[in-house]
Amino acid sequence: MDPLEICYMSAGELSRLIRDRQVSPVEVIDAHLARIEATEPTLNSFITLLPDHAREAARRAEAQILAGNYRGPLHGIPVGLKDLFNTAGVRTTSGSRILDNFIPKEDCTVAARFQQAGAILLGKLNMHQFAYGPTGENFDYGHMHNPWNPELVTGGSSGGSGSAAAAGQCTITMGSDTGGSVRIPAALCGIVGLKPTYGLVSRAGLTPLSWCLDHPGPMVRTVEDAAITMNTIAGHDPSDPATATRSIPDYTAALTGSVEGLRIGVVKEYFEAPLDSEVETTVRAAIAQLSEMGATVTEVSMPMFADAQAISGTILMSEAAAYHRELLANDGDKLTPSVRLRLEAGLFVTAADYLKAQQARARFNYEMSQLFQNVDLLAGPSEPITAPPILAAEVSIGNRTVGTVGALTQYTRPYNISGTPAVSVPCGFSQAGMPIGLQLAGRAFDEATVLRAAHAYEQSTDWRRQRPPV
Amino acid sequence: MDPLEICYMSAGELSRLIRDRQVSPVEVIDAHLARIEATEPTLNSFITLLPDHAREAARRAEAQILAGNYRGPLHGIPVGLKDLFNTAGVRTTSGSRILDNFIPKEDCTVAARFQQAGAILLGKLNMHQFAYGPTGENFDYGHMHNPWNPELVTGGSSGGSGSAAAAGQCTITMGSDTGGSVRIPAALCGIVGLKPTYGLVSRAGLTPLSWCLDHPGPMVRTVEDAAITMNTIAGHDPSDPATATRSIPDYTAALTGSVEGLRIGVVKEYFEAPLDSEVETTVRAAIAQLSEMGATVTEVSMPMFADAQAISGTILMSEAAAYHRELLANDGDKLTPSVRLRLEAGLFVTAADYLKAQQARARFNYEMSQLFQNVDLLAGPSEPITAPPILAAEVSIGNRTVGTVGALTQYTRPYNISGTPAVSVPCGFSQAGMPIGLQLAGRAFDEATVLRAAHAYEQSTDWRRQRPPV
Repeated sequence: MDPLEICYMSAGELSRLIRDRQVSPVEVIDAHLARIEATEPTLNSFITLLPDHAREAARRAEAQILAGNYRGPLHGIPVGLKDLFNTAGVRTTSGSRILDNFIPKEDCTVAARFQQAGAILLGKLNMHQFAYGPTGENFDYGHMHNPWNPELVTGGSSGGSGSAAAAGQCTITMGSDTGGSVRIPAALCGIVGLKPTYGLVSRAGLTPLSWCLDHPGPMVRTVEDAAITMNTIAGHDPSDPATATRSIPDYTAALTGSVEGLRIGVVKEYFEAPLDSEVETTVRAAIAQLSEMGATVTEVSMPMFADAQAISGTILMSEAAAYHRELLANDGDKLTPSVRLRLEAGLFVTAADYLKAQQARARFNYEMSQLFQNVDLLAGPSEPITAPPILAAEVSIGNRTVGTVGALTQYTRPYNISGTPAVSVPCGFSQAGMPIGLQLAGRAFDEATVLRAAHAYEQSTDWRRQRPPV
Repeated sequence: MDPLEICYMSAGELSRLIRDRQVSPVEVIDAHLARIEATEPTLNSFITLLPDHAREAARRAEAQILAGNYRGPLHGIPVGLKDLFNTAGVRTTSGSRILDNFIPKEDCTVAARFQQAGAILLGKLNMHQFAYGPTGENFDYGHMHNPWNPELVTGGSSGGSGSAAAAGQCTITMGSDTGGSVRIPAALCGIVGLKPTYGLVSRAGLTPLSWCLDHPGPMVRTVEDAAITMNTIAGHDPSDPATATRSIPDYTAALTGSVEGLRIGVVKEYFEAPLDSEVETTVRAAIAQLSEMGATVTEVSMPMFADAQAISGTILMSEAAAYHRELLANDGDKLTPSVRLRLEAGLFVTAADYLKAQQARARFNYEMSQLFQNVDLLAGPSEPITAPPILAAEVSIGNRTVGTVGALTQYTRPYNISGTPAVSVPCGFSQAGMPIGLQLAGRAFDEATVLRAAHAYEQSTDWRRQRPPV
């Protein structure tokens, strides 16, 4: 089979071939390692590549499957993890040379569950330093480059996860999302990124950015792959006391292909914020398509939308500074200056301001829960723009110039505040050929509905068949 | 019946007489109003006395009971509430002249539940301003005076609740406990004070001091009365989202009189802290008595005991400052200087310090939960000293001089941090005739065991028959 076809297959497609012994995990891993070799000079998705480990694991998987021990849809599937997911015996840098030699003794829970499911770790993925930035630049390990145009950012902080999945370097990647860090690179790289409900996926063994806003989530090329991944990684973990104890449904069973009867609210404030007109047209067309497919679309209002940046920013700055305080004191001079500035500024937030932000968050979440009395999903753009140039501090949107960080996080932060699930799913391209994402958000622990709508929309389009030029 | 006998009856005793129409609520209220008139010039327990309201309510209760509508053990029982419990139409000052004219429109949930149960509100009780102090001094409404020696403090912040219950001014009073404010005045005034589990009693309609440490609780003369009160006030309240939804047992049914088989841990660090030798001897005798009664007593260690002041203080200062920030800005000059200083100092705590304190709290609570793997209760002194003089900033303990605030809160703060139940029960008197309290602490939501042990101990002594000289 053509190696490039293997690299662009979804886990759903590839796993059937592996299960039926039409493709061997060895062939799968070799195809991906070749793809990485060809594209990595352009993309720089990896901080650490594990070719020997992966080949060895592929041979083991092949032998297991030939012996009749097929473990399920992740067996033999190549996976990449953002480099803040601890991996036993493999350095985990969090994107900083300060941790260049940090080799965890234990796998994080997510890595352990992937391994248990037979997935094969290809390597550790590049990221914004300590996940503290939405663009995907890294001065220690090199910037990440968008597969659709390498002069543009991948988005961050899980930028390497975005480029690796988009360019066929990995079938499945994992990111983490504190202010949008899964959904931003997913939208800008043209893939599916799911930020699950807070407490659904264990964070044990991940470097925190802001522990009450951090959410690990899958970054993949199809909605089905997000569901397949969630089936493996979701669920209670005694090592992460914030994980819920509820039982986990089969998320793939939710993918009925229908949005019939779903009530979708379009948040009007999203369209009053700075928003590129091409993105707006594309997202509105996607929502119109959901309507044509049988969903009931209404306009709704989220009056506290304008407060999301302040609420999320104050909490995030405080917790990031608290977590990294010792590192700042010992190795502050080794941090990327912009990351150091963000962390140090956080040391000056007062407890009273932090607590006021948490109180405002409670009101924000109450209002969010009221919205979901009348709708099943909220829809809007994932991002107000397509990928900006690397290192651009400001971007032009229409006739306004706004900060890049604020623009990239404006639609994503609300669902970190609420802790409720949100997915970015590709919904088209700009004239310049850059991907655009539709964001669908649902009720707490109702990933099933979020994925169902995203999947139905995806099935009605051909966006996922497009491949980046890299 | 002798009015003074009525005033010193417990709710348990008095309610049987009211139920059987041997005593009328009118007689009960008249006796208490006379007692208040006689003792209030010495004690100053009340900020607002409600004689007309109480007489009117007593006549209504009498009529209801004569008509066969007896509501249960609180019907016709005189109650006093610390003046931070909102009462509809009755000013609620939180101990500050700034709120001298604040008249709530609605009852707090606790007041509403008392009223529903037929209890009669006698008035609103004096307190340390905004509950921010453990001594029971108040420069706006006058200091509180200990019924056993009016030159000494009641303890605080619920000082008026302590003196009113101890001196027979009310049958039941309510206090609130953030760093010990129920148990401190209970111990120093010689009554029973229960700080229930966090989330068991609604705080809706109470002025917060530190919302993650605040616990409303009963202050009464017998353990049975604490159980009777909890039967009425405990349980979920939609207006306080922190309240647990679990069902509430009949706490009086737990009062078996036996401690047979209970495992009691004596925290060795409690006896290494500054501790008056007379108090130590008395508390050790009480614990020995529990052992003789069939409990298994062992020594245990709470290594993080020394961290409790820093953890509790940092959290308390931060939340108090956040809550009162606007009041400080608008009316700071009208606050008692020491309270103003504490509140303003809290504005300078950083978010990072607050969060580190919350993280240390999590470790503290983990260690506390480990202790309860091996014991059912922890025992020790409620206070290291008997009541100090009013306005004494320092106290001598043995040959050490320590700050009064630190001394009075050293044994109480650990259970505000853990949110687990703790009761102070009278266990003797000093040579000078001042009361000494035994503190018993249990597992979360296991008030039944805490009350059972306190009750069994109480029944084996005559301390509760002693009356203050006032």
